[in-house]
Amino acid sequence: MDTTTPEPFDAPTVIAIKRDGGVLSDAQIDWVIDGYTHGRVADEQMAALLMAIYLRGMAPGEIARWTAAMVESGQRFDFTDLRRDGKPLALVDKHSTGGVGDKITIPLLPVVMACGGSVPQAAGRGLGHTGGTLDKLEAIRGFTAELSKDQIRQQLCDVGAAVFAAGELAPADRKIYALRDITGTVESLPLIASSVMSKKLAEGARALVLDVKVGRGAFLKTETESRALAQTMVDLGAAHGVPTRALLTDMNRPLGRAVGNAVEVAESLEVLAGGGPDDVVALTLALATEMLAAAGIDGVDPAETLRDGSAMDRFRRLVAAQGGDLSVELPTGAAVETVTADRGGVMGDIDAMGVAMAAWRLGAGRARPGDPVQAGAGVRIHRRPGEPVTAGETLFTLYTDTPERLRPALAELDGAWSVGDGAPPQLPLLIDRLG
Amino acid sequence: MDTTTPEPFDAPTVIAIKRDGGVLSDAQIDWVIDGYTHGRVADEQMAALLMAIYLRGMAPGEIARWTAAMVESGQRFDFTDLRRDGKPLALVDKHSTGGVGDKITIPLLPVVMACGGSVPQAAGRGLGHTGGTLDKLEAIRGFTAELSKDQIRQQLCDVGAAVFAAGELAPADRKIYALRDITGTVESLPLIASSVMSKKLAEGARALVLDVKVGRGAFLKTETESRALAQTMVDLGAAHGVPTRALLTDMNRPLGRAVGNAVEVAESLEVLAGGGPDDVVALTLALATEMLAAAGIDGVDPAETLRDGSAMDRFRRLVAAQGGDLSVELPTGAAVETVTADRGGVMGDIDAMGVAMAAWRLGAGRARPGDPVQAGAGVRIHRRPGEPVTAGETLFTLYTDTPERLRPALAELDGAWSVGDGAPPQLPLLIDRLG
Repeated sequence: MDTTTPEPFDAPTVIAIKRDGGVLSDAQIDWVIDGYTHGRVADEQMAALLMAIYLRGMAPGEIARWTAAMVESGQRFDFTDLRRDGKPLALVDKHSTGGVGDKITIPLLPVVMACGGSVPQAAGRGLGHTGGTLDKLEAIRGFTAELSKDQIRQQLCDVGAAVFAAGELAPADRKIYALRDITGTVESLPLIASSVMSKKLAEGARALVLDVKVGRGAFLKTETESRALAQTMVDLGAAHGVPTRALLTDMNRPLGRAVGNAVEVAESLEVLAGGGPDDVVALTLALATEMLAAAGIDGVDPAETLRDGSAMDRFRRLVAAQGGDLSVELPTGAAVETVTADRGGVMGDIDAMGVAMAAWRLGAGRARPGDPVQAGAGVRIHRRPGEPVTAGETLFTLYTDTPERLRPALAELDGAWSVGDGAPPQLPLLIDRLG
Repeated sequence: MDTTTPEPFDAPTVIAIKRDGGVLSDAQIDWVIDGYTHGRVADEQMAALLMAIYLRGMAPGEIARWTAAMVESGQRFDFTDLRRDGKPLALVDKHSTGGVGDKITIPLLPVVMACGGSVPQAAGRGLGHTGGTLDKLEAIRGFTAELSKDQIRQQLCDVGAAVFAAGELAPADRKIYALRDITGTVESLPLIASSVMSKKLAEGARALVLDVKVGRGAFLKTETESRALAQTMVDLGAAHGVPTRALLTDMNRPLGRAVGNAVEVAESLEVLAGGGPDDVVALTLALATEMLAAAGIDGVDPAETLRDGSAMDRFRRLVAAQGGDLSVELPTGAAVETVTADRGGVMGDIDAMGVAMAAWRLGAGRARPGDPVQAGAGVRIHRRPGEPVTAGETLFTLYTDTPERLRPALAELDGAWSVGDGAPPQLPLLIDRLG
């Protein structure tokens, strides 16, 4: 024991305060985040603290400080000096709390770009049952998200968006996120809110729109929890001077007809070409409307950018700027299996979580951070809830590069859908709007 | 992701069950203990699970299986084949849940040996505010607890006891104990009970007596918690075929007049010489009576072994067998400070935790597993609660080898005692007996 310790706190004491339901002081939060970032607080100590936070919760003031400390753990981008046509950029971004078939970022960014917005997006990779935007975009040959700060600045001016790996933004969050994944501490409101907002507050957007998922396929299952998460993040944005609004949207059923990586890019291209599934188009336009309003852009119709090809043009320029080659065919898993209807009728409900787990087992997701994903793995949904079904027709197609994954994926799909005589209940896609 | 995993469980799933208040299956407990012992479950995963256990508790069946799995993680000693004078040894041991000034093992073992008992004792080092028997005995020049199994067997036959480091017994417990210490998960009934009993069930004793502490200086502060801990351990012993009984004893005030390492050995020698503080003598004899009864030894008076020198003789033989040299003067810290009375009157209550923290800051204890302790560091208590005090006389003496430790130690003592006009309330030493 050293009586002249330079540390103002010790980890067991800080952990015990939260364990016993107490409130951590600002100084304790700053110390533990900085200590963990720099290795003075050990992984096992942070793991115990995260579990205590999971079970005891955090007061609003604690969440705010925890988030601020994570932002402070790395650099914070500032693009307010950038100009296009002599005017400051309308810097706005969007974040989804994670869904199934949630490729919305891919058509959304080009729509906002085509309407005059600029999007600096620190994007993530998928973990657990949900996919990540980077994993999807990397299904495009050559696409890279490893951009330097100078590249990001140049792209924001020239192209209107940059999708980049978080890199040096909020390094404390990167360490904590990887730890949560292996210690059963993912589904915690304060930990989700601080993780999302620390990256988003550091990336340089001046306004944020959040898509907070509700339902079976979301991390938080109840509307009450999701609503509280949304409000917490809206408040965190306001406290950091970044106006933030949130949509609560349904995640009981998969979005669109494709769940995976390349299959979701393909569906996004359909949307950008003016087609695509209704729900994907509707959510893209709803979020675009919010982003344009948040960025102070008015007098434009985002739907028009899908019809006139300007959004598709922006997407091509974005992909090209980041090294991607859309002339190369998107990959498709070599092993294919189908699920067919054993009766006719109407497609019933489809459980987002069952489809997500099937895609995950096919190789579209990863079990541990750093694992590779298969670009060509995924599930295509041929009949959506409420659509008519003929006996013997194909309802789902599964793709993977590893044939032995087909069997466990089929097992996950089992029980996740049904064909009946009547239409399943309609679920509204947009549940509420906060902020 | 590998779909053909050889592991029957994954750690996040097991953690989540306990996190959500569920009951772990026998197979899950066996898997997680074996996996942690052999490195397939990571420190941070066990840390999260321990915090979940701390906050969610464990059902009796879970505690029993967790304990059994820890016993199974290493070897289990069996001394039932040993004979002395043609008869099987009366193998019995004692364990204390940890107190302040709790040197009872040191006079107790020789008393039981002198009465015909044989004590195989896997002893521990101190951690946190409580001292460890090994740290105390190692204040004797040359004493070692690193005994081979053959040495332990030989000593049990020849001398009647062996005090040894746990070594290969319950290695899962050793790893988990070190982890608990740095993750704020020490004070948990299921974790304390399983830790104590896994070592004690593996060490080869055929009967056990537990000294379960109650009060400010104990790990569990309330009598209700301590009583539940005692009953849990009594039940665990019975389930493993090792009859176990427990005394609940007071730990609001320090035991005796010495807290530290060498100072506690010195006080133990006083007891073995027929003197020593009343409470130390009384607790030694109460525990000896229980141990002899548990071992089936009757017709002997343990108090007589203190009067006639036979216990002292056994202690000398035990120390000599383990390399110790009692002819070398016990060490005393070179830096000394005293606390004197600023008024006359009657010594009031003394807070065991305050004295423990003072001794710890003087260097008698350790902050991290593996840290060294100072043999000569500690506190002598010159006036015990209820004893008359003259203004200006010395109430406490503090010893350390590092003078800069005196000031923080004095600060810990501050407020831990008082001198008043009337006697403080009497606290019964023996509170209850279970099993």
